[in-house]
Amino acid sequence: MEYKIALIKGDGIGPEIIDQAVRVLKAVEEKCGHSFKFEEVLAGGAAIDAEGVNLPDRTLEVCKESDAVMLGAVGGPKWDDLKGELRPEKALLTLRRELGLYANIRPAVMFEELADACPLKDEIVEGGLDIVIVRELTGGIYFGKRATEGSHAYDCMEYWEYEVARIAERAFEIAMKRNKKVTSVDKANVLDSSRLWRKTVEKTAKKYPEVEVEHLYVDNAAMQLVVNPKQFDVILTGNMFGDILSDEASMITGSIGLLPSASIGEQNYGMFEPIHGSAPDIAGQNKANPIATILSAAMMLKYSFGLEAESAMIENAVKKALKGGHRTADISKEESYLSTVEITDRIIAAL
Amino acid sequence: MEYKIALIKGDGIGPEIIDQAVRVLKAVEEKCGHSFKFEEVLAGGAAIDAEGVNLPDRTLEVCKESDAVMLGAVGGPKWDDLKGELRPEKALLTLRRELGLYANIRPAVMFEELADACPLKDEIVEGGLDIVIVRELTGGIYFGKRATEGSHAYDCMEYWEYEVARIAERAFEIAMKRNKKVTSVDKANVLDSSRLWRKTVEKTAKKYPEVEVEHLYVDNAAMQLVVNPKQFDVILTGNMFGDILSDEASMITGSIGLLPSASIGEQNYGMFEPIHGSAPDIAGQNKANPIATILSAAMMLKYSFGLEAESAMIENAVKKALKGGHRTADISKEESYLSTVEITDRIIAAL
Ligand SMILES: CC(C)[C@H](C(=O)O)[C@@H](O)C(=O)O
Ligand SMILES: CC(C)[C@H](C(=O)O)[C@@H](O)C(=O)O
Repeated sequence: MEYKIALIKGDGIGPEIIDQAVRVLKAVEEKCGHSFKFEEVLAGGAAIDAEGVNLPDRTLEVCKESDAVMLGAVGGPKWDDLKGELRPEKALLTLRRELGLYANIRPAVMFEELADACPLKDEIVEGGLDIVIVRELTGGIYFGKRATEGSHAYDCMEYWEYEVARIAERAFEIAMKRNKKVTSVDKANVLDSSRLWRKTVEKTAKKYPEVEVEHLYVDNAAMQLVVNPKQFDVILTGNMFGDILSDEASMITGSIGLLPSASIGEQNYGMFEPIHGSAPDIAGQNKANPIATILSAAMMLKYSFGLEAESAMIENAVKKALKGGHRTADISKEESYLSTVEITDRIIAAL
Repeated sequence: MEYKIALIKGDGIGPEIIDQAVRVLKAVEEKCGHSFKFEEVLAGGAAIDAEGVNLPDRTLEVCKESDAVMLGAVGGPKWDDLKGELRPEKALLTLRRELGLYANIRPAVMFEELADACPLKDEIVEGGLDIVIVRELTGGIYFGKRATEGSHAYDCMEYWEYEVARIAERAFEIAMKRNKKVTSVDKANVLDSSRLWRKTVEKTAKKYPEVEVEHLYVDNAAMQLVVNPKQFDVILTGNMFGDILSDEASMITGSIGLLPSASIGEQNYGMFEPIHGSAPDIAGQNKANPIATILSAAMMLKYSFGLEAESAMIENAVKKALKGGHRTADISKEESYLSTVEITDRIIAAL
């Protein structure tokens, strides 16, 4: 099969980490006989510099014609003074919306090798952490009506039942392949949109009688992640709460620098990116950790192309490299460490 | 001076813990020559059972005529099937709004004696934690326009500049008496109301040149609380983000069962309550920990009555009792523990 992949390298360390993911994909290509066609397009700060807009039309076009999108990271201090619509991050929001990427899937996994970096006490995370956050990504307060009128401003958290139903389906489908538990997070004791959310999730749950469902208020969920994260299998939540909880969840794993993410739309079309930022302070130094991006490529193979075996191959290669003691600067406890390119060499060798 | 205090004992363990706070206040009364007049009124589940509404008019009247309100806790499984407006928690929201309690002040303090219960690794919390969360309490998405229309629902996060300005003033005033640092939390990269929030906080900050100001996005704040909570002195934020972050912050202290809170309006009028819930499972067993409620009484003396010395007296008595090894069931590591009344005896003895 031939797969067309749009590459948005983005800003800061974006280009160098995407380059490594491409190298890994090419190695998979050779091994497995698939063909990946890459096309580079601009978004974020890089696009602002080159074309004066954060998301050129051509970028959207190429993304739409592709089977999937890989993104490095966007933004940096250089563009920090730009306002609202002009900012690099705004390109992300437009991409999500225009490409219909309503399901943000973020595994929060503790890598055994990084257990030391976990901020929680050992007894709380004993045996590891393996949570998947399923966050609604094209609705809620991110895309509701908003306005500023002089000394007054508002943003509406809006949900339609179909929006909740389709993301709930995703969460239950994922739970079916895991430990069959979905924790839906809302603020139904205060918000109308959360009451709609809860009712809709309950409806969807009826279709998955094998899956245990639980509802938590968002304030409680933020606490439970800290004191008892092992209770979670799949966390299902809206755009705003998901933004907060998925970051909190990644952080408690201690492995935030290694975590990938997928943003999926209809027919498994998706955009894949590391959850970390553009790290402008180390950009261009061949020092960045490419693992989160490489694992994002693995998620692409699985979620968008259905290549489960090839995806697992990459994941295992990463694990092998980590087990082999190979480390980039951010996760090395010693003085010496591997460069961006070198650790990728090790991962490719382990494929 | 004579002070009039409305007592809302509420549900679950509410009555027994309020009773203990009253005992402590009576002991202070004797020692210091002030006079506290208590008047009991109903709200929450207790009011639903007695009068069919969660907040009788008389309750609001008595609260308004008083100098301050003390509240135990409201809610419980008995009333869980009630909908929206009828629920016990709704009484809380109405009280906040009707009494103009726009400033929610929640100390997140680690009690040395409970350091073991802290979920974070020792090196992260070494030297203790002492954060104050200042949460806007009568605006934002809790009180904006909302509606459910068939398969669609929305809630508006709304802010007026004056609402942000007055809560920001509070935060800066509190910071001036502490370590002179305010971290304002918003989502200004996405929300109009957050951009208004940030602009207004920056304006207020100009009046406090001695105070260091920092702005964090809410997702980042949720992460920083876990990996580096010691960076915070005063956290200033809106109603929704404050709900989430203040619970997360309390939880990381490991002392959540001991933490009080104040909700303040104009002229230092306020409502004071423990941050924990009504714990229906142990209600009426003389087993609940009254310390958070007793410390809420101390906050009342300080914030509403300006009785700083008397407030400190209570705080010190609590510390002394804890140092003396006195423990209720929730914080005891031994088989034996003190009852609700007994630990209060020790605190009164230590006054
Ligand atoms: C950059 C920002 C707009 C974005 C969001 O809030 O969704 C980011 O925090 C994320 O989680 O991908
Ligand atoms: C009970 C609920 C409505 C309330 C809130 O969300 O404000 C509670 O969580 C709190 O923080 O006091």
